[in-house]
Amino acid sequence: MNLTKVERLLVNYKTLEEFKKFKEYGLQELSMLEDLQANIIENDSDSPFYGVYYGDKLVARMSLYRVDKRFDQYFEPAQDYLELWKLEVLPDYQKRGYGQALVEFAKSFGLPIKTNPRVKSAHFWEKMGFVPVDYDMERDRGENPLVWYPKGVTAKES
Amino acid sequence: MNLTKVERLLVNYKTLEEFKKFKEYGLQELSMLEDLQANIIENDSDSPFYGVYYGDKLVARMSLYRVDKRFDQYFEPAQDYLELWKLEVLPDYQKRGYGQALVEFAKSFGLPIKTNPRVKSAHFWEKMGFVPVDYDMERDRGENPLVWYPKGVTAKES
Repeated sequence: MNLTKVERLLVNYKTLEEFKKFKEYGLQELSMLEDLQANIIENDSDSPFYGVYYGDKLVARMSLYRVDKRFDQYFEPAQDYLELWKLEVLPDYQKRGYGQALVEFAKSFGLPIKTNPRVKSAHFWEKMGFVPVDYDMERDRGENPLVWYPKGVTAKES
Repeated sequence: MNLTKVERLLVNYKTLEEFKKFKEYGLQELSMLEDLQANIIENDSDSPFYGVYYGDKLVARMSLYRVDKRFDQYFEPAQDYLELWKLEVLPDYQKRGYGQALVEFAKSFGLPIKTNPRVKSAHFWEKMGFVPVDYDMERDRGENPLVWYPKGVTAKES
């Protein structure tokens, strides 16, 4: 049983400062910072990120996005699914189940999940029940998509 | 003047073996290997990859894919564009202009280009005239897209 608490992350300067400790800091985070500075988004509004705190320090995170059924190119029957990216646990906090807790949280929505993991993490995703798709260049464009199928869901026929 | 010769790579066992030396080896390469083994693609057929040889050794490569205008979410006016991925130069062959030669080759088609580079390469892409897009979560989903605009092309209004 995993008792790690997964929380929705709020957009504020503290969160955005903590994001800088993660390797996959990029345009998404910069855009959130600019929107906050320009008052386009409110302080403490919900972000697309979920995370795990150790004390008051953010030590693991992921971004989750619900893709509308109309854009589903992966699942049969076509349906809303979750796209998961930037799953990352800070080096000193790895091997404690935080990554697993985040993925289990994502699964708890009961929707299929697609992710495009960094190269060295195949074993972790396999353990979490994710499988590679049949590569389709037009759709996958150099990505290495892994998917998780809830009961009753299968791969889209290509 | 850059005299490096850029060649279209052919799908054969030699190329696929050389691909294993590149960090970004993944589902795309595995899928090409399986298709070759199953005779779904012919030996020595064109691949989506272009590369630079040093002697008979492949030392740099990229994958290029032409996206149809109908799917263009980046450019104004909407048009066919090139998606560039897996640009990579083997460590011992870096700083010789091979990466630049590949990107210049891609530009020579005269189409806009989109890429989603690995994190540490911002300076290179800037030198090549690429600029970040305005991040759009629905479209970019955690990517860090950089684009190159040929004359007369601008960013799509969001």
